[in-house]
Amino acid sequence: VERKNVLVRTKRGITSGETTYNRFTRDQEVVLVDVARYEQENHEAKCFVRAGPRERVVWAPGEVKACIVTCGGLCPGLNDVIHELFQVLYYNYGVDVIYGIRNGYRGFWHEKYRPWERLTPSMIAHISQQGGTFLGSSRGGYDLEKIASAIEEHGVNQVYIVGGDGTHRAAELIMQELHRRKLKVCVVGVPKTIDNDVGVIDRSFGFNTAIKHASTAILSAMVEAQCTPNGVGIVTLMGRHAGFIATNATLAAKNVDMCLIPEVDYSLTEILEHVLAVVSRQGHCVMVVAEGAGENLLQDAPSITDESGNVKKVGSIGLYLKGQISAYCASRLPAEEPVSIKYHDPSYMIRSTPAEAEDRVYCLQLAQNAVHGAMAGYTGFTSSQVNHRSVYVPISVITAASPSRLNPKGRTWERVLSITHQREPKKKQLASKL
Amino acid sequence: VERKNVLVRTKRGITSGETTYNRFTRDQEVVLVDVARYEQENHEAKCFVRAGPRERVVWAPGEVKACIVTCGGLCPGLNDVIHELFQVLYYNYGVDVIYGIRNGYRGFWHEKYRPWERLTPSMIAHISQQGGTFLGSSRGGYDLEKIASAIEEHGVNQVYIVGGDGTHRAAELIMQELHRRKLKVCVVGVPKTIDNDVGVIDRSFGFNTAIKHASTAILSAMVEAQCTPNGVGIVTLMGRHAGFIATNATLAAKNVDMCLIPEVDYSLTEILEHVLAVVSRQGHCVMVVAEGAGENLLQDAPSITDESGNVKKVGSIGLYLKGQISAYCASRLPAEEPVSIKYHDPSYMIRSTPAEAEDRVYCLQLAQNAVHGAMAGYTGFTSSQVNHRSVYVPISVITAASPSRLNPKGRTWERVLSITHQREPKKKQLASKL
Amino acid sequence: VERKNVLVRTKRGITSGETTYNRFTRDQEVVLVDVARYEQENHEAKCFVRAGPRERVVWAPGEVKACIVTCGGLCPGLNDVIHELFQVLYYNYGVDVIYGIRNGYRGFWHEKYRPWERLTPSMIAHISQQGGTFLGSSRGGYDLEKIASAIEEHGVNQVYIVGGDGTHRAAELIMQELHRRKLKVCVVGVPKTIDNDVGVIDRSFGFNTAIKHASTAILSAMVEAQCTPNGVGIVTLMGRHAGFIATNATLAAKNVDMCLIPEVDYSLTEILEHVLAVVSRQGHCVMVVAEGAGENLLQDAPSITDESGNVKKVGSIGLYLKGQISAYCASRLPAEEPVSIKYHDPSYMIRSTPAEAEDRVYCLQLAQNAVHGAMAGYTGFTSSQVNHRSVYVPISVITAASPSRLNPKGRTWERVLSITHQREPKKKQLASKL
Amino acid sequence: VERKNVLVRTKRGITSGETTYNRFTRDQEVVLVDVARYEQENHEAKCFVRAGPRERVVWAPGEVKACIVTCGGLCPGLNDVIHELFQVLYYNYGVDVIYGIRNGYRGFWHEKYRPWERLTPSMIAHISQQGGTFLGSSRGGYDLEKIASAIEEHGVNQVYIVGGDGTHRAAELIMQELHRRKLKVCVVGVPKTIDNDVGVIDRSFGFNTAIKHASTAILSAMVEAQCTPNGVGIVTLMGRHAGFIATNATLAAKNVDMCLIPEVDYSLTEILEHVLAVVSRQGHCVMVVAEGAGENLLQDAPSITDESGNVKKVGSIGLYLKGQISAYCASRLPAEEPVSIKYHDPSYMIRSTPAEAEDRVYCLQLAQNAVHGAMAGYTGFTSSQVNHRSVYVPISVITAASPSRLNPKGRTWERVLSITHQREPKKKQLASKL
Repeated sequence: VERKNVLVRTKRGITSGETTYNRFTRDQEVVLVDVARYEQENHEAKCFVRAGPRERVVWAPGEVKACIVTCGGLCPGLNDVIHELFQVLYYNYGVDVIYGIRNGYRGFWHEKYRPWERLTPSMIAHISQQGGTFLGSSRGGYDLEKIASAIEEHGVNQVYIVGGDGTHRAAELIMQELHRRKLKVCVVGVPKTIDNDVGVIDRSFGFNTAIKHASTAILSAMVEAQCTPNGVGIVTLMGRHAGFIATNATLAAKNVDMCLIPEVDYSLTEILEHVLAVVSRQGHCVMVVAEGAGENLLQDAPSITDESGNVKKVGSIGLYLKGQISAYCASRLPAEEPVSIKYHDPSYMIRSTPAEAEDRVYCLQLAQNAVHGAMAGYTGFTSSQVNHRSVYVPISVITAASPSRLNPKGRTWERVLSITHQREPKKKQLASKL
Repeated sequence: VERKNVLVRTKRGITSGETTYNRFTRDQEVVLVDVARYEQENHEAKCFVRAGPRERVVWAPGEVKACIVTCGGLCPGLNDVIHELFQVLYYNYGVDVIYGIRNGYRGFWHEKYRPWERLTPSMIAHISQQGGTFLGSSRGGYDLEKIASAIEEHGVNQVYIVGGDGTHRAAELIMQELHRRKLKVCVVGVPKTIDNDVGVIDRSFGFNTAIKHASTAILSAMVEAQCTPNGVGIVTLMGRHAGFIATNATLAAKNVDMCLIPEVDYSLTEILEHVLAVVSRQGHCVMVVAEGAGENLLQDAPSITDESGNVKKVGSIGLYLKGQISAYCASRLPAEEPVSIKYHDPSYMIRSTPAEAEDRVYCLQLAQNAVHGAMAGYTGFTSSQVNHRSVYVPISVITAASPSRLNPKGRTWERVLSITHQREPKKKQLASKL
Repeated sequence: VERKNVLVRTKRGITSGETTYNRFTRDQEVVLVDVARYEQENHEAKCFVRAGPRERVVWAPGEVKACIVTCGGLCPGLNDVIHELFQVLYYNYGVDVIYGIRNGYRGFWHEKYRPWERLTPSMIAHISQQGGTFLGSSRGGYDLEKIASAIEEHGVNQVYIVGGDGTHRAAELIMQELHRRKLKVCVVGVPKTIDNDVGVIDRSFGFNTAIKHASTAILSAMVEAQCTPNGVGIVTLMGRHAGFIATNATLAAKNVDMCLIPEVDYSLTEILEHVLAVVSRQGHCVMVVAEGAGENLLQDAPSITDESGNVKKVGSIGLYLKGQISAYCASRLPAEEPVSIKYHDPSYMIRSTPAEAEDRVYCLQLAQNAVHGAMAGYTGFTSSQVNHRSVYVPISVITAASPSRLNPKGRTWERVLSITHQREPKKKQLASKL
Repeated sequence: VERKNVLVRTKRGITSGETTYNRFTRDQEVVLVDVARYEQENHEAKCFVRAGPRERVVWAPGEVKACIVTCGGLCPGLNDVIHELFQVLYYNYGVDVIYGIRNGYRGFWHEKYRPWERLTPSMIAHISQQGGTFLGSSRGGYDLEKIASAIEEHGVNQVYIVGGDGTHRAAELIMQELHRRKLKVCVVGVPKTIDNDVGVIDRSFGFNTAIKHASTAILSAMVEAQCTPNGVGIVTLMGRHAGFIATNATLAAKNVDMCLIPEVDYSLTEILEHVLAVVSRQGHCVMVVAEGAGENLLQDAPSITDESGNVKKVGSIGLYLKGQISAYCASRLPAEEPVSIKYHDPSYMIRSTPAEAEDRVYCLQLAQNAVHGAMAGYTGFTSSQVNHRSVYVPISVITAASPSRLNPKGRTWERVLSITHQREPKKKQLASKL
């Protein structure tokens, strides 16, 4: 039976009339992926299904039971996504039963979180002005069998999962398991990563907010370095596999003197020489370091003993460089004017902020489309934006392309070089890596 | 003579080596415009030339004399654009003579602004953290003959103009006049409008920053209204022709009860009835009103006498509605609990803020590409982003498509309706407009 | 019966032990009022009772029923005061029954607000990070008889009233009426006014937060004015009777060119000449105007017709000056470069912000001491700070000294003159006022 | 020869008239220090000279040569102090020669900083909206002989020194040395410390701004902890000797679960048990730790090896506790739900921010009075505020009372206990410290 997609807002007692969407998206509508064309190319187009409300929905009113879960690290906008998933399910589609799963995948099955909590309008009314996730989150806790059974047991037929590429891989397995059990359940993802390293899509939500706070941290480091003779500021930013935050925050902050990202390997000598040259010339130096940068350097780093007495490898490239720069400059600068190095790690302050306005609108859009897709019967997709258009991307396409990396031959990196006046690493250095 | 595009940063004494771009953009590279495809469509593609540095530049080092001018109202990011135009001209292309034209078009020719000021690195070093425009701006002052003569007289051959659609129309005439005079001068635009009503392009710079501050203003109005019995907040936002700011700020702020934009006409009765219903139900009401909304209503508004004693028509839809709502509710609510209406106009506080991080990166990108285009010999284009890609759009294409308007049958408006729970205006109302 | 003041936190199940205050304040402890001494003065000291927890409390555990009400306009910090009144009553003194009175004095008696709402820890857990007042507020609704009867009827014996001088006058009458009825009820005030015009005390809560946002608004106006040829910015700030906000925001923002306050009368000519001189010299001018300034000027202002068609006197000195400056400069500046005047009224955006950290600590302190005083049996006092020390000031002393005014011969005004370079008004002008 | 204190603003071409101060402060005016009185006390009063412009100044116009230096760590407001010292010297007293000493005490004598830089109005015009210090700062570089000689050589007769208690001690020695050389030079201090541990005075400038950003950091840590199962947040704040920032930020942020300061020693067991109890009860725990807290604990801490390979004692109490809590909870919580500890150190981000409005007004006041005092012939004093009044405090009084400490039996600490519900340390613990 096909059903007409009618906004059932009357049910919630807000308006007295009945209204419908202006225009429905048809399933044949697609969005092209490769929009930059070169003369010699063939014109076969890769494309994704366009997102939006469909004229026909596959679920009867009252039939839907939904649940929402957030997994992994914090990211600005999580509460906006939760808020809007709820709003559209509840007000636009009249869904009554919407569970909030606590603290990530474990919340599905652990007895501590039983019974599942049903969300209400008043519970989520004010969450979107706050950072973090109203539902809590966690890494781990994934137990496919228990999760699938819990979903089956609660009769849930729409599962909304907000998380990164690991979370999405797990979501796909859940979908397959539910399919194996012959359950009619939609599994829908909303990609979340503060590192912006989800492939295919324009950008992940919260990224603009992260850039903002990251560049504020850089500006603080800059003030500190400039006011101190031979001041050196090292700002470690998020980005295990990709330098998106480090590079964009650098471009926003300007006046950064060196930016290190996982995609571009510098030798220790190149870094130290550059820092010393900058300090000697302008009296201070500001570095932005993605947390995943310099893996080539850390391999040679000495072991340290931490506060718990454990012997371990240096884990933080920023702290490692702090030590190296200090030692290197000590022998090359006048004893009376040593470098004064300040280490900044604003990571958690960035992750826990509420989303800025534009990211909030983006979250709203992603969440609304996630629900439209599920109501239309799609499953195994993630709600995204590609080439400035809303689309449904198969989860498998997203996970295959993630984590993505910044193109070290691309425009963003080029712009960073032009801002920082740092030089590209020498070719032989890159060669020696192989 | 064709010249190789070599970064001449050595000249500025910053690095000792010589470097070049990783990859040049070829002129055949284009970006598709229509990326959402429908089955039955033909596949002829409209496209724009891709922006980026070209391998060959048409100007010899030392030959270029450039000038930069900003026109029209303030918008976050102007200083970022000025800063980066200067940086790329000066550091990447070794241009020595870069004039800053003061206070818009008038600054080209008015004796008050003679001699033109040459920009230096120290002058623009810190401007991008400040709001407004370092060069000053103004509306008007356009005198084609005098501007062209001043450009000729100063021997300037690259003119960078930052402004809205009116400014771009004027820029095209300048280009034609210079052409008529057989002068080899590039005229390059960077589109600027706080209203985001430039057609074709993804969005204009400063828009995300504007949304942020606009939604903050809405949240203030909300607090004020919620704390007052029968409190009504009216927030007037920018948007003479288009509701982009009003709608996006509404989506970001959430909990708005009515949003009025120029593209959708409501009757006075519909507005008043909705406000009264909301106030009666929840005890307060928050309205967001684009400054250009409700022109249909203002035609019938009475004349007022202003503080200077001038008799004139009501110019502000927000103030007009304030009066109407007050009168309407007076007769329908208990005398002891009248509506308490607060009027908010945050316009200038929004326009004058510095750009947020993401907008700063966007400005940097637009400005760098503007210079790359000019150095490659392009003229009469504007530096923009279409479908998430950097492109050069002919000025005539931009002006023909501007001011653009929000699609009243589109997704953004639909989302506003779903947030505010306001109903679409009655059809006959729309009909009666014809 | 006297009772020992013991922290009864055990009751709330938070700690297992029992704890008491480190040091109790004795009733003989006082705080001197006049701490600046002149040689020839006699040394009789005016002083107030020092605030703080007393060793003996007059109420038995379980005996207290309290209520909290907020009256008048919004002010940053209201929620912090409510939050901490509740916390100390509930956790430190074990009070179970704490009513929140809605929307000011009317909330005591109006049937719409029956039954009174009992506050719970979860209700107030997160309010202090939000602007406005959780309880709502309003002006008016004062009915002595009904309020006293409602208090009697509910058996409330501690009434906490947060409001301005009018509210405090009303509070004293309530206390007298309850006394007349031979009811043992404490009436306690916490002084609130965004204008900071409460006499005797160091400053009212929320003032520092207000200064912050006011100076931000001035900086916006400054950017706007500086970027426009002959730009004039007029910023109207709160202050009907007193220029505390206008002067302090001016000192914080710096670079203001003229500041007008109710305590100092300038002639229209003096103002216009100063503005024209500044515009002619530096190309722009920024004025800060307290809303109560220039009453002498408004008396001569023409009538206007507002948007509702009502004929009335100009009510806003800022708008009046806008008209006057525009007309005055029109005849004195070149026609091609008229003044461009922007009017800014950030009032509601300032009032509705959450309190900044220091104000939050101040609110906490005022609220804790209010409760300590009531528990010790004091009534008819307001919790305040005088000479950097916490004190209890009799309500009658506060109301007699309010609204207070800035000393036009004092240091703050002198500092404003030194910042703005505006001159003091001519003596004859002051004389003509008599 | 005595000279009349006349504002010489005419000289700077700003106003055409001549103006004078409304009221001069007489040298007999004093401000009482002990304003809280107890019945039995004697009434001998300790007092300081009141600050303000004097009628007679000891310097002839044109005679004064001043210099300004900032020493030690960054603190919000340094630029405001520099800005206003310059403004009052230059505009109010017509001083032409005002040197800016670079990078602290070393800047007086090191050849690298020769010749001294003369400050101009345009150099300092916009500094007060920026963090840090325009002059640069540093620790160390103090060489009494060289400094005194440099001052003598430059003919400087007013030395303004902004710094902490160490800096003030050095300033007094400079004064004595100059005196020994029979030079007529005023040495004036403005107390600066982000820790607020300067004795005698109400508070040091920048403290309110520091509290604000510190409490923001705590709120971030709270979001992070709340969203994570068994999340523990440790926020290290400034305060080597005193817990002023830690306690006040805790009071502003609320919902903190434990606050540790140098003035109150807890045993490791007490801390660990409290944290475990809180985590077990509410699922997360937020700690605020002053950097100087827990010295008793660090004595027993194991050695670690840092990134440079150096073996050293654990220096950070926060990191030490992180390790201890992790180990302690590991054996007491279910293995599947370990504590997740996040360490936050916002120190440099706080130090480098620009001052908030109220602190800016405070800086302006301190700086103006510093100059008034010097012009009146005072020397060896520091410009301060005591009991809400501006005073001149002898440098020796300030240094004798610094660093000051929070009273562990006082109200602030009591409020912290009432907020955090942590218990006071056991008596025997305190005893064992002796």
